[in-house]
Amino acid sequence: MEIENRRRLHVISTGQQSREVLVEISKTIHPYIDMLHIREKTWTAAELIETVDELTAAGIPLRKLCINDRADIAWMKHVRGVQLSHHSAPVALVKERFPTLKVGSSVHSMQEALWACDEGADFLLYGNIYETTSKPGKQGTGIVNLEDIVLNIPLPIIAIGGITPGRVEDILRTGAKGIAVLSGIFLSEDPLEAVRAYYMAIHKEVKQLGETI
Amino acid sequence: MEIENRRRLHVISTGQQSREVLVEISKTIHPYIDMLHIREKTWTAAELIETVDELTAAGIPLRKLCINDRADIAWMKHVRGVQLSHHSAPVALVKERFPTLKVGSSVHSMQEALWACDEGADFLLYGNIYETTSKPGKQGTGIVNLEDIVLNIPLPIIAIGGITPGRVEDILRTGAKGIAVLSGIFLSEDPLEAVRAYYMAIHKEVKQLGETI
Repeated sequence: MEIENRRRLHVISTGQQSREVLVEISKTIHPYIDMLHIREKTWTAAELIETVDELTAAGIPLRKLCINDRADIAWMKHVRGVQLSHHSAPVALVKERFPTLKVGSSVHSMQEALWACDEGADFLLYGNIYETTSKPGKQGTGIVNLEDIVLNIPLPIIAIGGITPGRVEDILRTGAKGIAVLSGIFLSEDPLEAVRAYYMAIHKEVKQLGETI
Repeated sequence: MEIENRRRLHVISTGQQSREVLVEISKTIHPYIDMLHIREKTWTAAELIETVDELTAAGIPLRKLCINDRADIAWMKHVRGVQLSHHSAPVALVKERFPTLKVGSSVHSMQEALWACDEGADFLLYGNIYETTSKPGKQGTGIVNLEDIVLNIPLPIIAIGGITPGRVEDILRTGAKGIAVLSGIFLSEDPLEAVRAYYMAIHKEVKQLGETI
């Protein structure tokens, strides 16, 4: 049974790897993660569907899958979620017409977070918290802003951007629901070792929090 | 009331024009056409939705709109159809999960046409019939192959590719349900004059057919 209240590890594909590599890594890491985001903006609908089929065949449950932007693919393949950004369809419209999908919204400010919340998003990806190789030169929003978002937005907040295992404790102490990682896992020399490091950092933190209560 | 049995004029956007130009031309030509395909592969979901809103505001009815590939946009915006190709989701899956959408399938051979028919497509775009500037160097399939498709596939066949007003008669004599035009209208120096020429060619042909019965 899924424990709804526990901290979450989202992993996001990089847009830089082949389908074969994506599936192979996902197959290895999925027991440690809560959500795998297929974020491959140049892939066709047919390729995305083929990817979902291959991930499913590799034993990854549909409830752990989230498709970036393409609500139709998520809906047709019965995956758990769709992740939207400012260039996607509006959250409220997606929620209305695809009522069974979990809708994540990628936000970068309090204003965007409030808007996504009003529109009915189920969770938010907020960042980038730290400077990251995925967005070189873009300064991180930092922990203080993350805490501000967490305190003001009544939705699960998943922090993203430059998060290393060593930074997980700082992130989770803000009250963020979890973290999302791209290159830190998919582009790691050893993705299994990497995902385990994140997993342990998240669960160690939970234990410490429990001890201090 | 829409007369289901009449010949059809589909017009397809070129992927080369701005949203402003697309909307402006569509506003002018729409009384003469049966279906406007928004086929803009580089546009985001947000841009496609904005386009539908602008077309609707310009007086173009939703039943005349068809979105290329993105069933989610078509479904969310309540437009009439979605046009699929080999890199899209399978026709049968789209029909199953979006039951109110008219599903067109773009095919290039008898085999593809039979497959799309088996999968439940509502109509086929078949071509390219003639060599066209949209696909330079690609030889046309020709009238004989079109007639073969029309005789063997129990679906409305819309012919596409290099069709000029002067070629409409040859096309419709095969029993094809209609024609689809891209650059012949959208890239014409005078789109209104162009669409009228196609419209008159289609209706002249219908009249002639009526006279010979």
